[in-house]
Formats: sequence, structure tokens, C-alpha cells
Amino acid sequence: MKITCHFQPDSSEVDRWIRHFSQLLPDAEVTRWQPGDAPADYAFIWNPSRQFITEQTRLKAMFNAGAGVDAFLKLGLPVSCPLIRLEDAGMGEQMSDYVVQAALHHFRGFDRFQEQQQAALWRQRAPSDKADFPVGVLGFGVLGQRVARDLSAHGFAVHAWARSDRDTIDGIRLFHGEHALGEFLAATRILACLLPLTPETENILNRENLGRLRRGAYVINVARGAHVVDDDLIAAIDEGQIAGATLDVFREEPLPRSHPFWRHPRVRVTPHIAAISLYSDSVRQVVEKIRRIEAGLPVTGVVDTGRGY
Amino acid sequence: MKITCHFQPDSSEVDRWIRHFSQLLPDAEVTRWQPGDAPADYAFIWNPSRQFITEQTRLKAMFNAGAGVDAFLKLGLPVSCPLIRLEDAGMGEQMSDYVVQAALHHFRGFDRFQEQQQAALWRQRAPSDKADFPVGVLGFGVLGQRVARDLSAHGFAVHAWARSDRDTIDGIRLFHGEHALGEFLAATRILACLLPLTPETENILNRENLGRLRRGAYVINVARGAHVVDDDLIAAIDEGQIAGATLDVFREEPLPRSHPFWRHPRVRVTPHIAAISLYSDSVRQVVEKIRRIEAGLPVTGVVDTGRGY
Repeated sequence: MKITCHFQPDSSEVDRWIRHFSQLLPDAEVTRWQPGDAPADYAFIWNPSRQFITEQTRLKAMFNAGAGVDAFLKLGLPVSCPLIRLEDAGMGEQMSDYVVQAALHHFRGFDRFQEQQQAALWRQRAPSDKADFPVGVLGFGVLGQRVARDLSAHGFAVHAWARSDRDTIDGIRLFHGEHALGEFLAATRILACLLPLTPETENILNRENLGRLRRGAYVINVARGAHVVDDDLIAAIDEGQIAGATLDVFREEPLPRSHPFWRHPRVRVTPHIAAISLYSDSVRQVVEKIRRIEAGLPVTGVVDTGRGY
Repeated sequence: MKITCHFQPDSSEVDRWIRHFSQLLPDAEVTRWQPGDAPADYAFIWNPSRQFITEQTRLKAMFNAGAGVDAFLKLGLPVSCPLIRLEDAGMGEQMSDYVVQAALHHFRGFDRFQEQQQAALWRQRAPSDKADFPVGVLGFGVLGQRVARDLSAHGFAVHAWARSDRDTIDGIRLFHGEHALGEFLAATRILACLLPLTPETENILNRENLGRLRRGAYVINVARGAHVVDDDLIAAIDEGQIAGATLDVFREEPLPRSHPFWRHPRVRVTPHIAAISLYSDSVRQVVEKIRRIEAGLPVTGVVDTGRGY
């Protein structure tokens, strides 16, 4: 069996993945993809090049080294080969830690205390009531559900929105469909975006939708930078409609040094680290799926390329 | 029935407490204490004056408007009158939110990302493993237990230390007694201090004990400022033994503007807001205890003034 690994930008990280695959599949030939390579059986990929897609046409499955597959869909994939995303692989817990931290940070006013510290200013503010800080989770896939559950266990009132109807979790009200988005936003004081990036969700956090949130809302984005219209978010913060934001993802990464997010006092920037695929968990998951495919069994995590996630 | 309220420093806050008591006990006479007042039946107190203790000798019980009673014990209380602390009263959840936020902040490196943001620096760091960040909860009273439970539910490995042996909680190893303190500290990467302040615990976070923590440990103090030897903590941070601290309480409050904690890049300062007694929860609890005392029933939360908590 041949497995090819292809990451853009290419990096020494690929060697670590190859070592992990070789350990679990000692009989497989696991290599770093080079243009002109012979056809492989399976591919493990992050942000593929067009040439890769054009050349590697005999793959039984392509595995995406993350949860979001928007980089693939831009290339217009052949429908014959299933694209399979990573499911959780340690990302659920990381995502949950990140979002719970950010929600508590904003809810408890740590951003304001940080400003006070810079001025050596001692000014107490009683904590707000969680009843006044309902959290809206935008996107209710594997990661969105995990985050919603943990925020709820932490005492937040949580509701969620998904494009299509689906089962919800105890205590979490699910809004679904375009028509319910306004009601979802109007009920939200802390918005956590965990949507897949598709043509329907691109720019969803624009001036109009930010304006539908409760006044003084906070925005946490751990999905994709293109969900947010940057200028609209800054304008909404400067008008007081949005009280602050914690952003892990950006339209251009690394975030350009000149971008106003870096210096805005109400914006926290982290360098796309909310959830990083963990080597051992990810490789174990992919290897298990390869074994099932080889045995003719169905696997989970197959992307509906028409729907986009 | 006469209830007197006495807060130092005196503030308009007292009027809010009086209104809350009057609502729940419409037949009681609830007043703000003045020197020379006639004897009252019950007192609701924060940081009492010596004159109050000397004059009000016929109280059936004194209720402390918080969890920590060190301000009382300094005055040398008459043993005849029970001193009763607030138990939880909304403080457990607040304390837990604060400590979970701080633990995640340090564990996920938000402090470093914040420094990077100031320099517009995009540098990714993979998240650490929670197995490398065991949390030690110092003090295992009502609040310590709540914090330990919530940290554990959040995936941290949690152990705790108390002066005396007591029941623990599923999954939380309890160390007890002076002789076990070293072992407790050596197992700790994130230390959360929730101890009562007594002569035995004053200065417990000194050079020697900070040096027994795992290298690169973090300190969270939500108990009392006098638990920490400030200069020792700063020295331990500057040497790299301690990687950072989140401090809510200080020897002198407000923290003097000239204090180095304000400006230290590895110290987060908040103005004693980790847990604020909530009016309605607190008054409901005290009123229920007054009713039990009047009916000759036992109440919980009575301070052992010899032990100090």
C-alpha cells in the first residue's frame, strides 16, 4: 500500500507525520509527495496544490489533516474520490478549552482588568450574571457540539445554529436554517463561530449580522477568517455594538503586520492555534479508516463536496 | 429582632444589604451600626472595628459577609458568640470561573500570545498536554472543593492539600498535613491557593515552597494576599522557577500604585473580584440560619476560632 503526504507550505512537519504513519503501518510505503510521483492508494493532505489533484487520480481516499476542507473545495475536486476530514483527533478538547477560556475572559471582564492593570488602576466591578451572557454557538458539527456541551456544563445558557435541522443536546436549543439566523443572533451575547467555510457562510459575520447580536456582544472566531468581514467587525466594535473579540483565524495568515486587529485594544489575536491536529490521535484515526476501506466497510467523516462540509 | 450591619470601610453598599434583609425579614429592625447603639440580636459584618466587638456583647451570632474570617480573628473574638461565615452564596461558581479561566490562560499560553500580539508577532505553539499541567488546589474547604471538581471536569489532573484529613472527591487525590506539603507541591504545575488565612498559612507561598513546585509552575492566588511573600514570588518568576501568576488578593488593598506586581509582565493583577458575595444569595442564607438559631436548631458554617477557619 502506498500513502503519499502532501502539505502546503511544505515543511519538516511532514516528516513527523510520515514517521507516525510508518510506525502504525510498517508494511506501507509512506512518502512525501513530489510532482511526477507514481499513483498512491491514499493521501494525507493539508492545503493541496492543483498539480497534486491533477496528477493523483487513482487515490482510494484523500484524508484532510484538519476539520475544515475549504482549501480542497476551492480546487474543484473530482467526485470519484472520497475526501475524508479529521474528526476530533484531540481538536475537540483544545477547541473547547480555547472557547471556554475566551468566553470566561469576556464574561468576567478580564479584558477590562488588563487595561486597568496597564494603568495601575484598582477598580472593582461585580461579576455579571451568566443569565445576561447567553452564548450562541454558530455551527453545530462535531466541534461545535463539543464546545456547546462544555460551555453549558460551565453554567452558560447555550443555544446553537446550524444550516440544517439535526438532533440537539440536552439543554441546548438549536435554531436551524437561514430564516432562524436572526432570532439566533438576537438571543446571543457571546458568539462562538465554528462554522465550516462555504459560499453560504463566507462573510456571515458582516455589518448586518453583527448588528443583530445583543448590544455589547463578544465575538469568538475559531473557524475561518473569511467568515468575518474585518472592517465591519472593527466598525461594530468602535460603535459599541460589539464589546470585544477573540480571533484565532484570519483571511490572510500569518495576519499581516499592518492589520488593525493586531493593535485594536478590544481584539485579542492568537495565531491559529485554537485546535491543532495531534499527530498520534490523527494518524490512529486515519489508519483505522484505511483499514475499514480496505475491508470494504463504511467510514465516517466523508465530506459532502456539494454541501461543502 | 434587631440586626445590625457593620462594614469597614463604611459605604453605600451597607444600604443595599439592609434593604435586602428588610425584604426577607419585614418584622426585623435592620440598621447600620453606629457607636453607642443599643445591643442587637444578630450582626452582619465585614472587617469589624474593635469598638464594635467591645460594644456589641449580647449578639446571638455574628455573620461574616464573606468566606474568609481573618479580619475577625485578628481582633481576638469573645468565645461566647458564634462567628458564622458565608458558605458559597454564589461565590463557588465565581471562584471556579476565575480559577478555570486563569488555569486555561496559563496552560494554553494566552499570556505569551498576548505578548506576541503587542509585537504583531505570528508564532504558533502547539498546545501543551494537560498531563504535563497537573493542578494543585491548596485548601480544600467549600470553595476549594468546588474549584477542584470543576477543574477536574475540565480535563485537568487535580490534587489538593488540606491541613487535616477529610473526605475527598472522586478522582482527586488529597494530601494532608504539614509533612505532605512538599510532596503536594512537587506534583504541582498550576497552583491555586484557596486557603484560609491563619498563622500557619501566612507566608506559605515563600521562597522555599515556591521552589518545591515543578519548574515553570504557575501560581493563582484567590485567597488572601498574606499567603504570598511578594518579593519571593517576584524572585522566583525572574529566575524562571515560576512562569507566571494570576493574583486577585494582596497584602495591601488597593494594591499600591508603586507595587511591582502592577508592571511585571508575568503577573496578572485583578482587584479582589474573584468572588463577590451576591446580595440575594447571601441574605437568603443568613436569614435561613437566623431562623434555625431562633428555633434552636444547629447551623453550618460556624468558625472554629481556635483553628482559625
